[in-house]
Amino acid sequence: MKHFRDLGFHQLFDHESSTFTYLVYDPGSLEGIIIDPVRENLGRDLRLVEEMGMKLKYIFETHIHADHVTSAWDLKVKTGAKTMVSRASHVKCADHLLDHLEEISVGSFLIRCLATPGHTNTCMSYWIPGAVFTGDALLIRGCGRTDFQQGSSPRLFASVRENLFSLDDETLVFPAHDYKGFSRSSIGLEKRHNPRLGMQKTEAEFVEIMAQLKLDLPKKIHEAVPANLECGKISNVSVGT
Amino acid sequence: MKHFRDLGFHQLFDHESSTFTYLVYDPGSLEGIIIDPVRENLGRDLRLVEEMGMKLKYIFETHIHADHVTSAWDLKVKTGAKTMVSRASHVKCADHLLDHLEEISVGSFLIRCLATPGHTNTCMSYWIPGAVFTGDALLIRGCGRTDFQQGSSPRLFASVRENLFSLDDETLVFPAHDYKGFSRSSIGLEKRHNPRLGMQKTEAEFVEIMAQLKLDLPKKIHEAVPANLECGKISNVSVGT
Repeated sequence: MKHFRDLGFHQLFDHESSTFTYLVYDPGSLEGIIIDPVRENLGRDLRLVEEMGMKLKYIFETHIHADHVTSAWDLKVKTGAKTMVSRASHVKCADHLLDHLEEISVGSFLIRCLATPGHTNTCMSYWIPGAVFTGDALLIRGCGRTDFQQGSSPRLFASVRENLFSLDDETLVFPAHDYKGFSRSSIGLEKRHNPRLGMQKTEAEFVEIMAQLKLDLPKKIHEAVPANLECGKISNVSVGT
Repeated sequence: MKHFRDLGFHQLFDHESSTFTYLVYDPGSLEGIIIDPVRENLGRDLRLVEEMGMKLKYIFETHIHADHVTSAWDLKVKTGAKTMVSRASHVKCADHLLDHLEEISVGSFLIRCLATPGHTNTCMSYWIPGAVFTGDALLIRGCGRTDFQQGSSPRLFASVRENLFSLDDETLVFPAHDYKGFSRSSIGLEKRHNPRLGMQKTEAEFVEIMAQLKLDLPKKIHEAVPANLECGKISNVSVGT
């Protein structure tokens, strides 16, 4: 099965929500996947897929997002790709619900699902040899908040330590968001330098850090969560072209 | 000499000027380069270099920028890296002035300089087998403007067609800017889909497209160009930490 460095790759950014969307594809067959597509960028992303001649097979969500609405449903309708999300989400609209350690094969590569709950109870990371897409479980020098959507600091600590930091140090880390202009990290860098979850921190210290954050709710949470529980299948939201 | 896929890589973004800064390094020796660093991100970039244990050898500018001030001088002072810019810039502060087809060796990889004037007369692209850093000569589905700093549409057309589109179609394209959330392209994609410079366009059509743009001057041009002609060595600009 192919290593990440031998795959085609596009990292796309949504400036409004600071969300990364990823395209990963087999350069031979051009079969590939999209991770965390954003509704407002549907036109941009569809055009890129078409220009590349890519055959979109699966649309993966790293979790039920609270800050943006997914374009999964529209992408599925336009391309025939199947929507994939953690079984813990209980969404009825998805083509397939994913379990921890489940493996999905696409062209000449393979994606392994790693349950990483704690930011939400639906968080799933996606590992390809050489890279892991961590959603909001592990951000670059940070992590997702744990104060809504069944979030839990002890659960997030265990998820990151057991299911992400057990990967090779050289594994590239591609998160769902960044706010400082970073685009990638590695497991080794986060083990050494993540100020919340790095190996020098205890679970108790992490829980205390998260308890002190006191963040406002995401602006779009009351629109985004219900819409994403329907895979973005909503008719009254304008769509980017 | 190593292929780009076997090198370490960080793509960094400056949200204010939409500028990409790149770190490329040999994962064995950790010797590497930075391309187009932005003054406001000096602290972020220095910290990343330190956290990675990277030995910064060279600071490359793709051209004398008009939209942001480089952090080259401060990076040089802090790390000992050498500043590199096109000979056409005539800057006296640089450690080395680069010529077309000159090759610079760093650890186990090699950078070849490709003169790509037209956006400015100082534009230089940097090729590593598998990837090219194109500055403002070739953007993703676009290109830099040609109406100041000795810009020339016919010159830019020739630069892109002769010195960039002659590379393998699979060569990844990493530009100095993007405004739509893209982060990379390839020579093949730009040959097929660049609306200004794609292979379906003639030089006359390109010159006409560029003549119609009628853009405002970059906000920072009167500060940035003089500062960048001094490699960013100015004492009265606040520096990010």
